[in-house]
Amino acid sequence: MRLIDFTHFVNELATVSGRAILPFFRSSIAAEDKSRGGAFDPVTEADRASEAAMRQLIKRTFPTHGIVGEEFGSEQEDAEYVWVLDPIDGTRAFIAGLPTWGTLIGLTRHGRPAFGMMHQPFTGERFFGDGGRSTYSGPGGERKLMTRRCASLKDAVMSTTSPKLFAGEELRAYDRVESVARLARYGCDCYAYCMLAAGHIDLVVESGLKPYDIVALIPIIEGAGGIVTAWDGGSAAQGGRIVAAGDRRVHAAAVELLSR
Amino acid sequence: MRLIDFTHFVNELATVSGRAILPFFRSSIAAEDKSRGGAFDPVTEADRASEAAMRQLIKRTFPTHGIVGEEFGSEQEDAEYVWVLDPIDGTRAFIAGLPTWGTLIGLTRHGRPAFGMMHQPFTGERFFGDGGRSTYSGPGGERKLMTRRCASLKDAVMSTTSPKLFAGEELRAYDRVESVARLARYGCDCYAYCMLAAGHIDLVVESGLKPYDIVALIPIIEGAGGIVTAWDGGSAAQGGRIVAAGDRRVHAAAVELLSR
Repeated sequence: MRLIDFTHFVNELATVSGRAILPFFRSSIAAEDKSRGGAFDPVTEADRASEAAMRQLIKRTFPTHGIVGEEFGSEQEDAEYVWVLDPIDGTRAFIAGLPTWGTLIGLTRHGRPAFGMMHQPFTGERFFGDGGRSTYSGPGGERKLMTRRCASLKDAVMSTTSPKLFAGEELRAYDRVESVARLARYGCDCYAYCMLAAGHIDLVVESGLKPYDIVALIPIIEGAGGIVTAWDGGSAAQGGRIVAAGDRRVHAAAVELLSR
Repeated sequence: MRLIDFTHFVNELATVSGRAILPFFRSSIAAEDKSRGGAFDPVTEADRASEAAMRQLIKRTFPTHGIVGEEFGSEQEDAEYVWVLDPIDGTRAFIAGLPTWGTLIGLTRHGRPAFGMMHQPFTGERFFGDGGRSTYSGPGGERKLMTRRCASLKDAVMSTTSPKLFAGEELRAYDRVESVARLARYGCDCYAYCMLAAGHIDLVVESGLKPYDIVALIPIIEGAGGIVTAWDGGSAAQGGRIVAAGDRRVHAAAVELLSR
């Protein structure tokens, strides 16, 4: 009853979530809706509609499971299975109409990330993994996700949410890494980790992440052959400062520069 | 025989170009192909295949027209009609597997941008305009493109390719604008101008653009009700330092800060 059933169920969650979110993506309701006293915000409405739909489906199907969500807090966090939900990871991309946001659906078992999906409903892409194997489905069909080899940091394509999110010692640490890497891209949030799992990006460095920003991505990255940890090499499952790489050599080089 | 026929023809160009590019997007050929002496680069191959296909179709259909392209230079630049082509605008996004690049197909008449298309073949999105009217077609169907109202710079969602592309006085000018804006997104190239035309982004500020980076976008932005000029308020058609806004008030505020 373990992962094979959850694969089907996670896809169902992604489907109901995508249906709840898409009407708000690139909508101009915000500018026109005066009835709610000007407080109407499409990204918040989409976030709440999606999380409510996913929670309802989880509770109906697995009433003993716990849920941790960005919008509606935690329930039964000590359960064997806990769902960790972030309906819109990449709200700033969402606001700007860009397709580089995603819905994160993670499942922990005994506190460890066991299964994860990133769903981009606009492009119709799904990235999923169980830590042992990761798969992509999208407009071009289905395929296995595999990180690529990258021998050294100077060959690495890297990504971070924004270089302006770092300050002080963290900024200096980040800059040591970016100054060596071949190319840096900004603002892709969960999409960057999925491109890492797919073998197009070699390194992602971020800080200030919440557990629901990363839990779903860990089994996808690991199932594709990558490595994701805290900057000090510890577990990534609590969020915070995160470094993910497709090749262990790049991860080791980044950790060395970040923790110097 | 003017714009109505070109609409159909530009769509044909976009189709042949997309067919040429997509096999190279997210391909891992680069790592495996040793037969070409290690010089194989998917983005260059895709660029060349797309531009060659578009040039062939233009020459066969309109032999008297001129062509300016990023990859194969200029032919008959003094013709009444000149096609201005950039097969992959946003090569760094392309390299990283991100969908925020596009194919730019512009047409000038007597040197003035008359018609433009941005085609994103992975998401299946087309943005086109003739300066008077702009249209979007994508997964959700077709609709008119219209910029949104934005009363002041402090409410503006803005975008630039990278804040690290500016230096010296240009960087100070850019920072004056970004420090006032509500939110800045990086690395979207042509996609940002199209989100401006669609009413999701309010302001784009860039420098160092080539004519083929902007010519196709001008009729899309203007047809959607926006304004695009050089930082000093002059014509945008030669590239260089560009400022585009959906609302004239935001454009005026940005020009004031950029040219101070």
